[in-house]
Amino acid sequence: MQDAAAAEGALLTAPSSWLGCGAGCAGRFTWSETRYRCPACGELLEVKHDLAALQATPAEAWKRRFAERRLAGHGADASGVWGFREWVLPELGAAEVVTLGEGRSPLLHAGRLGRALGVPDLWVKQCGVSHTGSFKDLGMTVLVSAVAARRRDVRAVVCASTGDTSAALAAYAAAAGVAAVVLLPRSKVTTAQLVQPLAHGALVLALDTDFDGCMRIVRELSDDASYYLANSLNALRLEGQKTVALEVCQQLGWEAPDWIALPGGNLGNTAAVGMGLALAEATGLVGRRTKLLVGQAGAAAPLAHAYAAHDGYASFKPVTAGDTAATAIRIGDPVSIRRAIRQLERCGGAVESATEDELAEAAALADACGQYVCPQTAAALVAVQKAARRGEVRAGERVVVLSTAHGLKFSEAKVAYHERSLAGASTYARANAPVPLAPALGAVRDAIERRLDPRA
Amino acid sequence: MQDAAAAEGALLTAPSSWLGCGAGCAGRFTWSETRYRCPACGELLEVKHDLAALQATPAEAWKRRFAERRLAGHGADASGVWGFREWVLPELGAAEVVTLGEGRSPLLHAGRLGRALGVPDLWVKQCGVSHTGSFKDLGMTVLVSAVAARRRDVRAVVCASTGDTSAALAAYAAAAGVAAVVLLPRSKVTTAQLVQPLAHGALVLALDTDFDGCMRIVRELSDDASYYLANSLNALRLEGQKTVALEVCQQLGWEAPDWIALPGGNLGNTAAVGMGLALAEATGLVGRRTKLLVGQAGAAAPLAHAYAAHDGYASFKPVTAGDTAATAIRIGDPVSIRRAIRQLERCGGAVESATEDELAEAAALADACGQYVCPQTAAALVAVQKAARRGEVRAGERVVVLSTAHGLKFSEAKVAYHERSLAGASTYARANAPVPLAPALGAVRDAIERRLDPRA
Repeated sequence: MQDAAAAEGALLTAPSSWLGCGAGCAGRFTWSETRYRCPACGELLEVKHDLAALQATPAEAWKRRFAERRLAGHGADASGVWGFREWVLPELGAAEVVTLGEGRSPLLHAGRLGRALGVPDLWVKQCGVSHTGSFKDLGMTVLVSAVAARRRDVRAVVCASTGDTSAALAAYAAAAGVAAVVLLPRSKVTTAQLVQPLAHGALVLALDTDFDGCMRIVRELSDDASYYLANSLNALRLEGQKTVALEVCQQLGWEAPDWIALPGGNLGNTAAVGMGLALAEATGLVGRRTKLLVGQAGAAAPLAHAYAAHDGYASFKPVTAGDTAATAIRIGDPVSIRRAIRQLERCGGAVESATEDELAEAAALADACGQYVCPQTAAALVAVQKAARRGEVRAGERVVVLSTAHGLKFSEAKVAYHERSLAGASTYARANAPVPLAPALGAVRDAIERRLDPRA
Repeated sequence: MQDAAAAEGALLTAPSSWLGCGAGCAGRFTWSETRYRCPACGELLEVKHDLAALQATPAEAWKRRFAERRLAGHGADASGVWGFREWVLPELGAAEVVTLGEGRSPLLHAGRLGRALGVPDLWVKQCGVSHTGSFKDLGMTVLVSAVAARRRDVRAVVCASTGDTSAALAAYAAAAGVAAVVLLPRSKVTTAQLVQPLAHGALVLALDTDFDGCMRIVRELSDDASYYLANSLNALRLEGQKTVALEVCQQLGWEAPDWIALPGGNLGNTAAVGMGLALAEATGLVGRRTKLLVGQAGAAAPLAHAYAAHDGYASFKPVTAGDTAATAIRIGDPVSIRRAIRQLERCGGAVESATEDELAEAAALADACGQYVCPQTAAALVAVQKAARRGEVRAGERVVVLSTAHGLKFSEAKVAYHERSLAGASTYARANAPVPLAPALGAVRDAIERRLDPRA
């Protein structure tokens, strides 16, 4: 009877979700209320799922259900996040979803790049091939959908961010008809940096203070439940981001990879991917434990330092972040540190750091192999190479690198590299400049032949 | 017997393709040889298909086959181009394909934008959500795959382009390990403009001549079959681009839309989309004729002029293109004019032109509704609005706009608009600037409330 129902695709037990303490304190809160931290211990909240309810439906039935949604041409089912919706926010109906077609991004086998890094079975998951050009879309669709559907009392969604978060917030808020507000230090505000939130109609406030000052005001503001906080301590964002782990496994026919490598700054993504993998494991969707491999920029590598100490991350302490081309992970005191360490401990992960030259050369190598990666993703590529050299990633293991933003969002760093003027870089092994030439067929042919065969 | 085989998904007759004259002259050439024009009349060649062979397999069997490929997580089947491969280059095997996950881009219902334009059932097909950020990926995967698999004699693939074409060529060539060469006028060459081809390792030659001079050398060069031409007169590119029409119909459950609207410059895309729709109609995959609606920038609108003359485009004549923010369609003498007119005549299409202010405001409106469009796509949006006002697009008709590039590729135009400094624009109805403010909770709250309720 149960088997028959499952074969028909029915769910045997209704899934449910709530907010609970990430550190394990008791207490359940609904995700449709305003609450970011555990009232008992102050740790960040996480979305929790009724695991028994998810387990009551056989893994094969889940796989069929998730596969059928891939056939949808548009709407919630066509989203890589909401295609897994019973595992995200099961209480939210498909018609309540605000989607911009997030997820469903390409997974590319990168054989040539992989061989160059010492990991022949390398894949790149192109999370930046998306509406706003970064993986932040995965989380923002969840946060904005929840607000639009369940929080008529919210007057504006607010964040402090110069980068991908403000772009994603503004786009989803515009699609939903919800007001978005971005707070920034006045010194950091240029139209060019903020063209995505401005174009999407967000209110951008340029304050005479530093970034911490902006964050302080955002937090004060969000004490009033009518201003909803969209920074990464919000658990709903991680809930969307975790689906990238499910999608990678699905794209590989539910054969989980040995490693997922990704850049680490605020570490929300590390936590989220770990949570997704843990759920896939606990429900039997995958039969193998995937390890997390985190790459940090050397200028902001507190987690890599703690990993190197081999003390179960006990020695972790925040640092003052230095300058790096990987601006989106220039974070010395990561918000999601505890969540991330829990996942790294669970799966037996590893953490590496990269110099500015290593970052620049890894990005240039990847681009030359036909990828187009951001400086943050380069940190993950360097981590793959170093972990392979150290034998942590073994020959023959399958590694999926999460490319977290489209290279188009980081044109300036690429231009600087190819013009040999990138701050912190010095080697420029692959810098490629235009070649001035007389407009004559012979000259052009000679130039091509010289490039094809430099010895000629 | 036939029905049983079809039900099993077998093809009843092997499909085949060749190059033939677009104007209808006799003569068949294989697509694996170097030939761009009809030797009899000089018209551009097109990829032709054995229509009877495609028709021999029932439409429902094709739909099932195309649907099953949507379940693939990676490789040729996961490509929006190669998922239709029997209709593209059936002779090329899945293992021979060079793919970067092109196609499979989101189709978004854009209700609010549509209502503002007078077409409530408006959809946006996000072709710019792709590896190189434009629809050019769809064609370049076909051209580069054909070269990599069948043309060991080709030493380099060559184009003259400042824009999306050179980016796509360089990326696919890098992925395939094929040499790419881009020729450009020296005056137009900056690292920033060319960062994609440079990063992908293309040889960029900066010649002391104008664009026509570069094109002349590219053509001379390609008289030698070892230098293969990648500009848009190459029929293989259109063959990939046509799949966007098939994909849109598939995403809409094979209910073809009333209109597909798209920007028109060189008109290769107009021709390609028309060819895709014609094939879907001829094979019974769709039961309705979709009309093409082409939007041109007023500064380069030779086709719109000819359409307005109501003489079957007989009065078409090239113009000298003026300046426009829609740089990718700044073309006075379109290469694919004959191909495009054939398709417009077949389907009963329409053509409109847009002023610079209309382009700027349409893009700003779309962005404010959560889309993120390039200036070229704005020309298609203006065309939708004008055609609706004139009654050519009727109330209740379904219109799909092809968004041909990611807005991230046109940040400069967006920055200029929001800074009120865009050349040719004057109205700035939606310009949105950062608001300087004291770093105090009260001031921030007041600024938000003023935005939410400007009367307060």
